[in-house]
Amino acid sequence: MELQKLTPITSAANARIRHLKVLQTKARARREEQVFIIEGSRIFRDAPEEVLREIYLTRAFLDRAGEAELRRAEAFAAAGQAFLLPDTLMEKVSETETPQGILCVAAMPEQAENISMADTEGRAPLLLLLEDLQDPGNLGTIFRTAEAAGATCICMSSGCADVFSPKTVRATMSSIFRVPFRITADLPALTASLREQGILTCAAHLEGSCVYDRPCYTGGTAFLIGNEGRGLSDAAAAAAAERVRIPMQGSIESLNAAMAAGILLYEAARQRRCADGV
Amino acid sequence: MELQKLTPITSAANARIRHLKVLQTKARARREEQVFIIEGSRIFRDAPEEVLREIYLTRAFLDRAGEAELRRAEAFAAAGQAFLLPDTLMEKVSETETPQGILCVAAMPEQAENISMADTEGRAPLLLLLEDLQDPGNLGTIFRTAEAAGATCICMSSGCADVFSPKTVRATMSSIFRVPFRITADLPALTASLREQGILTCAAHLEGSCVYDRPCYTGGTAFLIGNEGRGLSDAAAAAAAERVRIPMQGSIESLNAAMAAGILLYEAARQRRCADGV
Repeated sequence: MELQKLTPITSAANARIRHLKVLQTKARARREEQVFIIEGSRIFRDAPEEVLREIYLTRAFLDRAGEAELRRAEAFAAAGQAFLLPDTLMEKVSETETPQGILCVAAMPEQAENISMADTEGRAPLLLLLEDLQDPGNLGTIFRTAEAAGATCICMSSGCADVFSPKTVRATMSSIFRVPFRITADLPALTASLREQGILTCAAHLEGSCVYDRPCYTGGTAFLIGNEGRGLSDAAAAAAAERVRIPMQGSIESLNAAMAAGILLYEAARQRRCADGV
Repeated sequence: MELQKLTPITSAANARIRHLKVLQTKARARREEQVFIIEGSRIFRDAPEEVLREIYLTRAFLDRAGEAELRRAEAFAAAGQAFLLPDTLMEKVSETETPQGILCVAAMPEQAENISMADTEGRAPLLLLLEDLQDPGNLGTIFRTAEAAGATCICMSSGCADVFSPKTVRATMSSIFRVPFRITADLPALTASLREQGILTCAAHLEGSCVYDRPCYTGGTAFLIGNEGRGLSDAAAAAAAERVRIPMQGSIESLNAAMAAGILLYEAARQRRCADGV
């Protein structure tokens, strides 16, 4: 592409560069502006075109870029929204150890309105309800795994780690743009409401009386997963119809929260494949 | 306990302190001396007494310590192998963000000799074969999940991340002391040998022809998991009897390696519970 269409930025004191740093580090700034930062070739290609606002790239990125990436970069350059940074400046604004030379400001995807019906396309809903998950890597891995397992929506309590933090976004492997999600201030109330709608609500619980592979998940199902250290609050666990336990051998006290979510979702997916005879 | 039995260290230039730093950061030093560092209350309690060599602690740790911890600390103090550090020095040698004030030098557990028979206690072997896994957090999570799922041994190719690095050890949640493991230079040869012994060897593979929940895992089973980016080498995949695929919906290219291992191991555990009628 023609480099002269790109707007060069060379100073760390540039207002755009300072603003990128704020968006990388401050959840509040992201929330107020309803934008966040995405980094890397993969998510630059995967992000829906309409969510991208500004792109920042290096010459090295352009040298390696494929056709789809170049076409996308050119469209932004034509609109005056593509900026060329020297490697040293990209390293300053990047949150990764080895920057891939592409970083964008993106609009936050809209939250799902009707969570029990989001993205079901005729399938029974398969929901994940997360309470106060703190680890950004766990949260991102849960998005990635949930998409693969066929989850139809992820609901997060407002005490969860910010889903738009750089580490979480990276760990989602772009699925933040594909899995409908919603942030809720009252997870127990949401659980109760899903239960009234006929969705089987199952709390992952160390003291669950029921082994997780016993209930039937071929109908609408929601799994509740609690905080990494404390597990689910009593209120959230009490709101669920079932408490399911993932059996553990040895002396392990609990599984990693993302692992527990993946095992439950893949059990539901397995049962649904069985029921469909595939 | 009586603090005067502890040997105080106050200088960062102390030879023991410098040595701890080397053991924290250099895999080669750990290998040569056959020791590694463990950090935190939980693993200090969980580590078998005979593997502990030296313990380093802070006054704040002693103030919070439970009876089991104090008894353990006293035994080392009596042997002249317990050292009292000021908080600032503990922060220097610690690899965690918020040190718990207890850090030990521990002998590496011996590797399993007969991997297909390690820790089976009459159960059918359930093995995990890891090829060139690079992420310390993934490796640690795999140990933790493998113990919970009832894995009998973990074999790692010599290209895997060092299992004795601080981050891996922390992520194992002490299971590094409980799950038999072995490091092998030739994973394909090991796979072939297990196959000859009648163990069902299954390579986790994106192009597997067989969905992972189809084979029967109630007999001796080994799952092969490949590198996070590249997956399994052709040689390792070819050595396995089956290639199994974890179905993925959406646009996800692959699951996290630890997640894939967990889903496979828990499917084996589920089948075994079913077969036992529990």
